[in-house]
Amino acid sequence: MSASVIDGKAIAADVRASVAKAVSQLPGQPSLAVVLVGEDPASQVYVRNKVRQTEEAGMVSVHHRLPETASQQDVESLITELNADDSVDGILLQLPLPKGLDADAAIEKIAPDKDVDGLTEVSAGRLTLGKPGLVACTPTGCVILAKRALGADLSGKHVVVIGRSILVGKPAALLFLAENCTVTIAHSRTKDLPAVCRAADILVPAVGRPGMVKADWVKPGAAIIDVGINRVDAPEKGEGKTRLVGDADYADCAEVAGHITPVPGGVGPMTIACLLRNTVLAACARRGWNVPEGL
Amino acid sequence: MSASVIDGKAIAADVRASVAKAVSQLPGQPSLAVVLVGEDPASQVYVRNKVRQTEEAGMVSVHHRLPETASQQDVESLITELNADDSVDGILLQLPLPKGLDADAAIEKIAPDKDVDGLTEVSAGRLTLGKPGLVACTPTGCVILAKRALGADLSGKHVVVIGRSILVGKPAALLFLAENCTVTIAHSRTKDLPAVCRAADILVPAVGRPGMVKADWVKPGAAIIDVGINRVDAPEKGEGKTRLVGDADYADCAEVAGHITPVPGGVGPMTIACLLRNTVLAACARRGWNVPEGL
Repeated sequence: MSASVIDGKAIAADVRASVAKAVSQLPGQPSLAVVLVGEDPASQVYVRNKVRQTEEAGMVSVHHRLPETASQQDVESLITELNADDSVDGILLQLPLPKGLDADAAIEKIAPDKDVDGLTEVSAGRLTLGKPGLVACTPTGCVILAKRALGADLSGKHVVVIGRSILVGKPAALLFLAENCTVTIAHSRTKDLPAVCRAADILVPAVGRPGMVKADWVKPGAAIIDVGINRVDAPEKGEGKTRLVGDADYADCAEVAGHITPVPGGVGPMTIACLLRNTVLAACARRGWNVPEGL
Repeated sequence: MSASVIDGKAIAADVRASVAKAVSQLPGQPSLAVVLVGEDPASQVYVRNKVRQTEEAGMVSVHHRLPETASQQDVESLITELNADDSVDGILLQLPLPKGLDADAAIEKIAPDKDVDGLTEVSAGRLTLGKPGLVACTPTGCVILAKRALGADLSGKHVVVIGRSILVGKPAALLFLAENCTVTIAHSRTKDLPAVCRAADILVPAVGRPGMVKADWVKPGAAIIDVGINRVDAPEKGEGKTRLVGDADYADCAEVAGHITPVPGGVGPMTIACLLRNTVLAACARRGWNVPEGL
């Protein structure tokens, strides 16, 4: 093991602390509306965490619940109300929606200036065009982790993103590009993926294939920002037990990489921290406040 | 010279012919509104060409002129009118606008469904998110040229785009990604640019630096789609004479490449052809017509 561990849990705590400090310096209290439709147990846990962390950072969090039986119209009407509500700075629609509802159409109803998940067409377009806007949380977290490992100036680093999802792969590529990195987007159709990955100073696997990235895919000294979170069997922990692993084979890659994020405790904790940060940024942009330093 | 020449002029003529054929099969006539503000001589030529080629393809072209002294409000009001005009399928705002006008703000007034230049935030977002929408014309032309050289299935090809402009570099990268290519975006901050370029099966220089790409930047057999159009001195043609060259050193690169676009006569002619194509696509999407085959 030669790689130094990028401690996402600690860095996420730093981001949350900087958000809380920023909030305390603002002339008003940012407010996040969280919309949960239905009874999905995992979604309930996520929403609870988001609400709690928003409040811990000194912001207002309003939790809106709609029943499993809510219609598309019900969901969109609620979003339209929240768009019009001047006290609301950010709107988060917890996904997935119950079957039969059109998540894309609902997301498009969110006012881009309140789109703290960065999921609307306008938010994606602003990112692509290099205009100010709200950017998806997980890719933002990846860039923050890379900067903590390698320094604030990532200019000229070659980033290889594996995966081209709209939630992570593509926005991560665009964000690293905005940091003046050379960026390669690889995916399932890429030929000789190991060779492509070996060009990377920063390797960002985001495909959901446990342990896919091996040591011989990694340039010595490279940073691995592992977005994969995969549940696999863990017979060593007892019958029927499981554990979480990333897309990189951690033990193997850590022998070669210079920096690596663990799973869990790497990219995962950054997502909510970046949501809180986006809520502050949305509030500042909407209300004409200066963004506090250090955010 | 080993490379075969990708004849953009002939391929653009094919695209225009397929547009004209498509138009003749539609239940109605698509219509393009072209807005020219001021008296810029080059813009007047461009607009005249666009209007003429639109009409030659069997479509309606309406040319709107505003004086050099037009206000931002004048420009935006005209666009708003054209958005509301059901007979208009595509709106093209000729750039640059006269000094003092905000082109970005004016472009954002264009209804995304009529944005045949693919310049609005929503159009860029749809491209990034992989949703149906209108895509900028020059990058669309690059993909068509690459397919004509290498075949319709570009899956797995490694594309290196040099340049990250919002008009060409970034949309070209996203379009080739949608064709299942591995895509690298390189630029002025890229380290060892020649080595990065040598990985390319398809090399797309789009930076505006005459003759920058040399033979030793090119993998033997690669296709070069040269977006650069640079005017340089041509003393061999006589004192004070100039000629157009691309970003690739054509004579040098043609020794190594498998396929290469000339400048002029490569990417350039594709742009208006793709504008005509976008006008048909916009009309079909707006009016619920099937897109004719072969477009």
